[in-house]
Amino acid sequence: MSESRQNPDAGDFAGWMRARGARTEQALEAELPAVDAVPARLHDAMRYAVLGGGKRVRPLLVHAAGEVAGAAPEACDAAACAVEMIHAYSLVHDDMPCMDDDDLRRGRPTVHKAYDEATALLVGDALQTQAFMVLAESASLASLDAAARMRLVAELARASGSVGMAGGQAIDLQHVGLAMSLDELEAMHRMKTGALLRASVRMGACCGSVDEAGLAALDRYAAAVGLAFQVVDDILDVTADTATLGKTAGKDAANDKPTYVSLMGLEPARELAAKLRATAHEALAVFGARAKRLGELADLIVLRSN
Amino acid sequence: MSESRQNPDAGDFAGWMRARGARTEQALEAELPAVDAVPARLHDAMRYAVLGGGKRVRPLLVHAAGEVAGAAPEACDAAACAVEMIHAYSLVHDDMPCMDDDDLRRGRPTVHKAYDEATALLVGDALQTQAFMVLAESASLASLDAAARMRLVAELARASGSVGMAGGQAIDLQHVGLAMSLDELEAMHRMKTGALLRASVRMGACCGSVDEAGLAALDRYAAAVGLAFQVVDDILDVTADTATLGKTAGKDAANDKPTYVSLMGLEPARELAAKLRATAHEALAVFGARAKRLGELADLIVLRSN
Repeated sequence: MSESRQNPDAGDFAGWMRARGARTEQALEAELPAVDAVPARLHDAMRYAVLGGGKRVRPLLVHAAGEVAGAAPEACDAAACAVEMIHAYSLVHDDMPCMDDDDLRRGRPTVHKAYDEATALLVGDALQTQAFMVLAESASLASLDAAARMRLVAELARASGSVGMAGGQAIDLQHVGLAMSLDELEAMHRMKTGALLRASVRMGACCGSVDEAGLAALDRYAAAVGLAFQVVDDILDVTADTATLGKTAGKDAANDKPTYVSLMGLEPARELAAKLRATAHEALAVFGARAKRLGELADLIVLRSN
Repeated sequence: MSESRQNPDAGDFAGWMRARGARTEQALEAELPAVDAVPARLHDAMRYAVLGGGKRVRPLLVHAAGEVAGAAPEACDAAACAVEMIHAYSLVHDDMPCMDDDDLRRGRPTVHKAYDEATALLVGDALQTQAFMVLAESASLASLDAAARMRLVAELARASGSVGMAGGQAIDLQHVGLAMSLDELEAMHRMKTGALLRASVRMGACCGSVDEAGLAALDRYAAAVGLAFQVVDDILDVTADTATLGKTAGKDAANDKPTYVSLMGLEPARELAAKLRATAHEALAVFGARAKRLGELADLIVLRSN
């Protein structure tokens, strides 16, 4: 709250996060199928997968980029929900026995543990569909014309599919136990996590208006933040404990997965994260105060402890 | 070929099917990621899943409904591809060990057998995304405005998700080995297979122009054909052999799944299929000759042997 006193107009970052976080929870709650609608068990499991906490980094990026583009928070809600539903579906599928086989997510049993494998498969499938349905039908998108909505669909699809998140996951699986160069690792992470983080920023921009130069600056920001996110993930996997992470710590080493820490060492990985944070801030300079929240999110992503 | 002599202007049905089938194969080939694009193995498996035959009933319904709506075949290609990609993704996931656990599809090993389970999971995920990407980005949709494209996204998402195909699959899984009334069976199939068949017809209509009354008639047609499709599937499961079906025959009985045949008996199921075929034709009467292909597809769906 001390920041709010320094900058009373813009409000403090923690307060902004709480407000945007709360509206994201409310929007997700509203955009997910009601638990009493048929099929109730599937809908219950979908809500379990999405509403069970999570840092909501992607929705926050949508809202922060929306501020740069002059978009009202209401105009960003659907894009924020859609991106988070894609993220949630990927976690449900990644945790399944045929993928990472993990029992714990966000401090609770994973969906296939809390329900069953077939339900987890369908939950992921249906959450992906729901993301596109939200972009097609959400009442909160009333202020956007069909062309802007179509751009949101295109951004989300490109980031999620075989040349984005799903493709990055495929490359990841192929390299378990195999050597990987730093360049290969970076290329994989740009697809696996970077693409959806970048889409979050670009979709926030689509909810308002940004010129080509602005979009290029946002892309530079998103590329740096997306990579920093993964470098910090790799650092936390070796430095944090399972309780703090809310997911199994030390998993990458146990699975013999190449990481920034295993390829560079811990200190160089920390230096890389710091450098990417600086790059992200440099990219935002052109926007001035409008990009305050994006800058603070870059700090949060690099300095987080879980 | 005799039909072609009766109606030389419109061309014979077999010729129409061949022409529309060929352009669908070509469009799918073009809309799927190239096999030499990274990640090559995932793209290879996606192409294996989609391009390995299949009756292409849904693309044919898109094109036939497009004819009713005055849409050029080129305007229907993207919708036809998108619907078929959703169908293909659902087959890949349904065949997985945690679902129906089947080794054979379209006369070839299923994706998780030909590749591996993790790849099958990602193939399904990425094919679903690709369907929405096609609707967002395909050059073949240039003749449709953004509002029409958005309607295509909405129709496809609504039909595929938790209140459509994926939800029907969840209900199906919950009822293995349990009693089910005919009404419950029909409600399940309206979601599991009916919703996407209906979407195929509605999306074809979106590619051109149909008034509200016309859309209601198409819905009646699609509801009858969607149900008939499943009734015939259940009949073939007990009357056809594995070689003819290209998938394991007798699977429903082996899995103790309720079917139209198990609930009604074989002859009443055949009578129901014939009645639904008649209902489909009645619904089309309002369109006259424009609906010729939709009528012929209803016949094909009921009279098929695999």
